[in-house]
Amino acid sequence: MDKFLQEVAPEKAYRLLNLGATCFVSAAFNGDGDVMPAAWNCALDLAPCKCTVVVARDHYTRPLMEKSGYFAISLPTVSIAKVVMQLGSVSKNDVKDKLEQSDAKFFKLDGFDMPLVSGCAAHLIFKIIPEPEMEQKYDLFLGECVKAVADSRVFRNGHYYYDASNQDLRTLHYVAGGHFYALGEEVLVPGYDD
Amino acid sequence: MDKFLQEVAPEKAYRLLNLGATCFVSAAFNGDGDVMPAAWNCALDLAPCKCTVVVARDHYTRPLMEKSGYFAISLPTVSIAKVVMQLGSVSKNDVKDKLEQSDAKFFKLDGFDMPLVSGCAAHLIFKIIPEPEMEQKYDLFLGECVKAVADSRVFRNGHYYYDASNQDLRTLHYVAGGHFYALGEEVLVPGYDD
Repeated sequence: MDKFLQEVAPEKAYRLLNLGATCFVSAAFNGDGDVMPAAWNCALDLAPCKCTVVVARDHYTRPLMEKSGYFAISLPTVSIAKVVMQLGSVSKNDVKDKLEQSDAKFFKLDGFDMPLVSGCAAHLIFKIIPEPEMEQKYDLFLGECVKAVADSRVFRNGHYYYDASNQDLRTLHYVAGGHFYALGEEVLVPGYDD
Repeated sequence: MDKFLQEVAPEKAYRLLNLGATCFVSAAFNGDGDVMPAAWNCALDLAPCKCTVVVARDHYTRPLMEKSGYFAISLPTVSIAKVVMQLGSVSKNDVKDKLEQSDAKFFKLDGFDMPLVSGCAAHLIFKIIPEPEMEQKYDLFLGECVKAVADSRVFRNGHYYYDASNQDLRTLHYVAGGHFYALGEEVLVPGYDD
């Protein structure tokens, strides 16, 4: 899939997050990387694109974020729903080869060390905006986007485009347990172009 | 639709927000109410359920939130996509009868004064958790849920259930302009019940 990844204009990157899809959070420090799924991520600002993500303190990913000052948000698709559950049901605190044991395939973006999961609709790299009180009180991390790429089969010109040709690339929207809904049909309200 | 609204157990209320759907933010102060759509809302904690929502300072809704200390998050459905755009394209700063001019029908929950829009999948009332620095720097508001109701045709026992019978009640996921996607098919990964 990764050959379809194309850079997203910085001023349109927030739109990747508008759908409210479940994400992977990736981070790495000193060559040690981890990936965890998180339903609680959200855009925070337009340009530069900012986001929030909730990462509890018991996740192995969290100190990697804190030490490196960076994290990535990736949007898994229907094609890898099983991988979302695999990476969310085992902690690298307990299983050191968690990533290798999963069915995920990983890659990196030039200049960034965090492991990214192949088969996602988009990947955004964030530099943490330090807000230590928010991190401690609410497990809430803020980030400013420094790079964004998306699968050109589903995101072009600042819009997602889903049709019969790319159903396996629909984003996932979490309920609980192993229960998700995929993104569905387009809804267009005429007269409000952007 | 509102006859189908049923109380949601407080410990399951966060699941209403897990889908990442576009929401309405409602607030009222001294009998003056407003409703605005917002794509940037997110769960923040499990129990008590907390959330974040981004509300810029130029919205009429914002001082109503600040003065009353409360806001509501409602999840509009495909059936009222046009109303989302109506309530998002006009400001009550400019048009005092914005709500009346729209096609929305409004109701209130007992004990709360904010206007809620009929035809939503769920409504959650939040008491603002004061974090003035976050509000000023990022337009980010935190809330703790004090009441949650959902349409029993789509949410029961802590899960969303969508099928052929309730397609008009699917949540909306925003891209830009008048461009949304509706929630689609169920995706179940076996072995991870909750």
